[in-house]
Amino acid sequence: MKLKHAILAASVALLTPVMAHAQDAEEAVEAFDAAASLAALATEQAFVFNTLLFIISGILVFWMAAGFAMLEAGFVRSKNVTMQLTKNMGLFAIAGFMYYIIGFNLMYPGDGWIFEGWFGAISPTVLEAVDVTIDEVDDAEYASVGSDFFFQLMFCATTASIVSGALAERIKLGSFLVFVVVLTGLIYPIQASWTWGEGWLDEMGFADFAGSTIVHSVGGWAALTGAIILGARKGKYGPDGKVNPIPGSNLALATLGVFILWMGWFGFNGGSELAMGTADAVANVARVMANTNAAAGGGVIAALILTKLMYGKSDLTLMLNGALGGLVAITAEPLEPGLGLATIIGAIGGIIVVVTVPLLDKLKIDDVVGAVPVHLFAGIWGTLAVVLSNGDANIGTQIVGILAIGAFAIVTSAIVWFIIKAAMGIRVSEEAEMTGLDKVELGMEAYPDFGRG
Amino acid sequence: MKLKHAILAASVALLTPVMAHAQDAEEAVEAFDAAASLAALATEQAFVFNTLLFIISGILVFWMAAGFAMLEAGFVRSKNVTMQLTKNMGLFAIAGFMYYIIGFNLMYPGDGWIFEGWFGAISPTVLEAVDVTIDEVDDAEYASVGSDFFFQLMFCATTASIVSGALAERIKLGSFLVFVVVLTGLIYPIQASWTWGEGWLDEMGFADFAGSTIVHSVGGWAALTGAIILGARKGKYGPDGKVNPIPGSNLALATLGVFILWMGWFGFNGGSELAMGTADAVANVARVMANTNAAAGGGVIAALILTKLMYGKSDLTLMLNGALGGLVAITAEPLEPGLGLATIIGAIGGIIVVVTVPLLDKLKIDDVVGAVPVHLFAGIWGTLAVVLSNGDANIGTQIVGILAIGAFAIVTSAIVWFIIKAAMGIRVSEEAEMTGLDKVELGMEAYPDFGRG
Amino acid sequence: MKLKHAILAASVALLTPVMAHAQDAEEAVEAFDAAASLAALATEQAFVFNTLLFIISGILVFWMAAGFAMLEAGFVRSKNVTMQLTKNMGLFAIAGFMYYIIGFNLMYPGDGWIFEGWFGAISPTVLEAVDVTIDEVDDAEYASVGSDFFFQLMFCATTASIVSGALAERIKLGSFLVFVVVLTGLIYPIQASWTWGEGWLDEMGFADFAGSTIVHSVGGWAALTGAIILGARKGKYGPDGKVNPIPGSNLALATLGVFILWMGWFGFNGGSELAMGTADAVANVARVMANTNAAAGGGVIAALILTKLMYGKSDLTLMLNGALGGLVAITAEPLEPGLGLATIIGAIGGIIVVVTVPLLDKLKIDDVVGAVPVHLFAGIWGTLAVVLSNGDANIGTQIVGILAIGAFAIVTSAIVWFIIKAAMGIRVSEEAEMTGLDKVELGMEAYPDFGRG
Repeated sequence: MKLKHAILAASVALLTPVMAHAQDAEEAVEAFDAAASLAALATEQAFVFNTLLFIISGILVFWMAAGFAMLEAGFVRSKNVTMQLTKNMGLFAIAGFMYYIIGFNLMYPGDGWIFEGWFGAISPTVLEAVDVTIDEVDDAEYASVGSDFFFQLMFCATTASIVSGALAERIKLGSFLVFVVVLTGLIYPIQASWTWGEGWLDEMGFADFAGSTIVHSVGGWAALTGAIILGARKGKYGPDGKVNPIPGSNLALATLGVFILWMGWFGFNGGSELAMGTADAVANVARVMANTNAAAGGGVIAALILTKLMYGKSDLTLMLNGALGGLVAITAEPLEPGLGLATIIGAIGGIIVVVTVPLLDKLKIDDVVGAVPVHLFAGIWGTLAVVLSNGDANIGTQIVGILAIGAFAIVTSAIVWFIIKAAMGIRVSEEAEMTGLDKVELGMEAYPDFGRG
Repeated sequence: MKLKHAILAASVALLTPVMAHAQDAEEAVEAFDAAASLAALATEQAFVFNTLLFIISGILVFWMAAGFAMLEAGFVRSKNVTMQLTKNMGLFAIAGFMYYIIGFNLMYPGDGWIFEGWFGAISPTVLEAVDVTIDEVDDAEYASVGSDFFFQLMFCATTASIVSGALAERIKLGSFLVFVVVLTGLIYPIQASWTWGEGWLDEMGFADFAGSTIVHSVGGWAALTGAIILGARKGKYGPDGKVNPIPGSNLALATLGVFILWMGWFGFNGGSELAMGTADAVANVARVMANTNAAAGGGVIAALILTKLMYGKSDLTLMLNGALGGLVAITAEPLEPGLGLATIIGAIGGIIVVVTVPLLDKLKIDDVVGAVPVHLFAGIWGTLAVVLSNGDANIGTQIVGILAIGAFAIVTSAIVWFIIKAAMGIRVSEEAEMTGLDKVELGMEAYPDFGRG
Repeated sequence: MKLKHAILAASVALLTPVMAHAQDAEEAVEAFDAAASLAALATEQAFVFNTLLFIISGILVFWMAAGFAMLEAGFVRSKNVTMQLTKNMGLFAIAGFMYYIIGFNLMYPGDGWIFEGWFGAISPTVLEAVDVTIDEVDDAEYASVGSDFFFQLMFCATTASIVSGALAERIKLGSFLVFVVVLTGLIYPIQASWTWGEGWLDEMGFADFAGSTIVHSVGGWAALTGAIILGARKGKYGPDGKVNPIPGSNLALATLGVFILWMGWFGFNGGSELAMGTADAVANVARVMANTNAAAGGGVIAALILTKLMYGKSDLTLMLNGALGGLVAITAEPLEPGLGLATIIGAIGGIIVVVTVPLLDKLKIDDVVGAVPVHLFAGIWGTLAVVLSNGDANIGTQIVGILAIGAFAIVTSAIVWFIIKAAMGIRVSEEAEMTGLDKVELGMEAYPDFGRG
């Protein structure tokens, strides 16, 4: 923006002598118009760049939906893969619809708050008209509404993807999808409006660059609440307190899922810079990319070494979740840290995952893919870690944000889960769980040609 | 473009007083050059943006080739997976070569039509020179030839990908690839020139933004014609008229394929805006992205609900094809509709797929992956649906386009299929079909380590 | 850059008459500032475009890490898949860390050479400050340091990915990762500095656009050296000289890997144009995209036909490696050739792969995925082929570069492999090799639900 102002100022300066010689007022006006045109060009170019950033980033975050689908399909048993894929495809479609119908304006009400700073506007999303000009757009200093909607929609869907993994292998398809309707239409957008819609948490100065808390922890809280209400899979916890590991059926798919998520995260964090039309903005985006990558790598290395030390063998599934833990941790502030600090923040995210996965098992909370350690615990860490590099952030405010959003997510999720449980049931039959959800619930196996080991 | 003209006009205005004071003609000329430089910058920037749009979109549409490969590999039996992968890798390479050798100039003849509006130029593609300047490029208001070729090539390859799925599990590799040579070198480019090369259908006003008819239906017609000539797989249709379902071997792969296609479609439709250098253009691209996503989601939700109602269980494979049906349906006009209409157009696309898949089976036309319902039937719907939002489109013209292109695709495909059948045979031996094409035709299994269920 | 100079010149011209009328020096200065602002805008826009090119390309090359992981997981037996995935995830994380700690400044020392032209600077990477302005950036004519680091880091990781495939199914995890530390921290950056860091090979005029030699052959040499020192897998070569084929466990995954690599290569080669802010630069990027695609297609078609002629059946695994051979071959000069020559260069790359895969087996060098034929042999071919289209390249210099970098890579790799072998052992136990590395070394199977065939 600085450049644009400089151009405008300089252009006016240029015109001063010209105008001194202008023979009449009309000429003076024309001359002033000309000076404005350079500034106008700069403005329009920035608008194009920013919109492009949202488009590219939106596509990348869309891709994360595929990443979650592959990760989860790889981490469940082969008898439940079709169900997991069905949930992931279904949740993404529902998230898009709900965010269009209600979520986007609830999250970004502008001047349309129903309760100022707490509850936004209720209306479906309307995009800018076809062929809108720079003079007609909603915000010429920002980006097109369509691109903003497209980008933000993907964040909303991510929240739902997080939940589906934790509750795999025992929740009913319909019950899960009804929860997604509420999560993506109400729970996510309402709390997101508090910060990103310029609501009360934003006023307080809560800092969460791309959503360690607002996206990941919210998904994590909803997943945790659901996992407790739903109960563990049959056979996961023995009567003697023994934890029976239930290995995932396809680690190649799970690894692919993590690579996809890692890739998509460049859009998740990079797009959250919200601008790239000037040198400072685009250099910031680049910083975010480098730091995001460093943190993911830190998470992998930490898990690689720590599992070797703890168990004598490096553990791929924890390395995969370590990468995700590192990514979640850096998400609250991927801009300010240097590469070294980013690596450390990510590594601690990875360590948190390795340490808390067995912890959940001790509490007999059955989180099939490790969504709670990755998205909730590493998300809390990342939100606190903002103060390590961002001088504007305040540890007290960060804690307030974590607690307020957490309380809201827990309470609303629990209410919805209980209503669903009472109204339509939440858990598949024991027979379906034993035989496999694919055969019993869906009548369609994911790998019908392959014998069971 | 408006901005650029405004800049030029304003710059001239700026120079009027200056020129009044210019001491000689030379100074006046120099001054005018200076005014032009701002316009030149705007032009060049737009050229860069447009070229970048084609590059990004081309990469995304390339990615669809992988999507088709995974979708088809997931939908065939494990004994035919290597063959399906081989066809997909082979067809993409051949499409690229044929489009270079003949297709591109046949499709975009410029002033080089052999039969004006009906049959284009015959010559290999020549790119602009290395280090070409904005003054030397073919069209400074558009984008670089290299980027245009790169983008359009991927559309050509898509047509061939559509065919490979329908004819899976029984067509000979060589026969299929020979068909691809003709499809990508002649059939696709010739009919595409009628509209996109500014041929006779374009003159009539046929509207097909990104190719519901020109790409998807053409692939669909070629697939349908081939499927009829080729006949059904052994055992698919019992002598008593019973339809035996032949489940795909890997639904995780098929789901991945659909996510890939969905992602690639953002380039397919978004790139077809053909420009993004100005606020209106980039905002249009963003609209296209949002609508494309909405339509795909509509297709998924429609299939999710409809299969639950029809069969009592939601059907993942139809949800996957529902997504694709929604995407194909919105492809003819992804810009003009609002998000609500886009969702509905996509949902109807999904419904068409769910309803017509059993219809084809009734006709004993064996389309292994559902390519005809998805690409042909939803493509026709999408082409008709243009008139719902695009005031410039005319239902009569849309029908003319659908029929003319359909007739051309059917007739040329049938001729080529019959020649191939007569000259080299089209169908593998019964033994190969039973044992699997991978072992018999290729001597290489896709999953040699895994036992058969 | 030409446009920018033209703008500046023209702007000065514009100001000449204005300044003639300026009433005092201050006004003249202001007027000159105004003229500069248009040039400043052009400079800043180019900086944004270039940085964006690195960001997009970096993401694409990142994606190649997933491609290698899938390719290799598909080409090894199912009992070693977890190990291969672990190596690929681990190596990428380590490469990122090493390149940050030492590699980047070793490779791009600027004025900080320790031995001028031969050995760069030793220091960790420091990015430009947050909110850096165009006046403060390291190089306003280039791109942000963060984007450059992000992009170049991915090339470094690619080198390590190449090695992991060749040595699969028998190397110890820890020994491999220690090698990666040295490869990515020292071997790769030092030799890369000779050309891309403006060292002695660059002074000589060695031409390697995106790294046929500097990236691919270096990975290939390190792999070859390792494969020789490590020895072949048990049972690969019979005592009677018979070669026992060991088929890969998942060709769908391997094919996906190649599609991913092909996609990523658009960033690999396209990003290596290093600029896209002007018409000439972006048109060059587009040329590179089109040529890269043509070469890959040429490699596929060549392998498709040649294996049919040689063995009577087209061979998917050689078509996959043919695509990669074509891509490696065009990497040294993807800009200058026309589409026809690019196709031929790629086709020869594919032929080289088909011909040299059995050659290595004759020498009893066990390269599990064909990394040496693809990355080393096709890389040498591509580096020589530069002279076919690039008038500035010299065959003698190309050979010097190939030999010098080859010698350095062989010697340093051999030393490191021998030290690792002596210090910690390099090969897993015979029992682990027989039972599978996944069970014995990692205690975790990739596909636990699927029976063995």
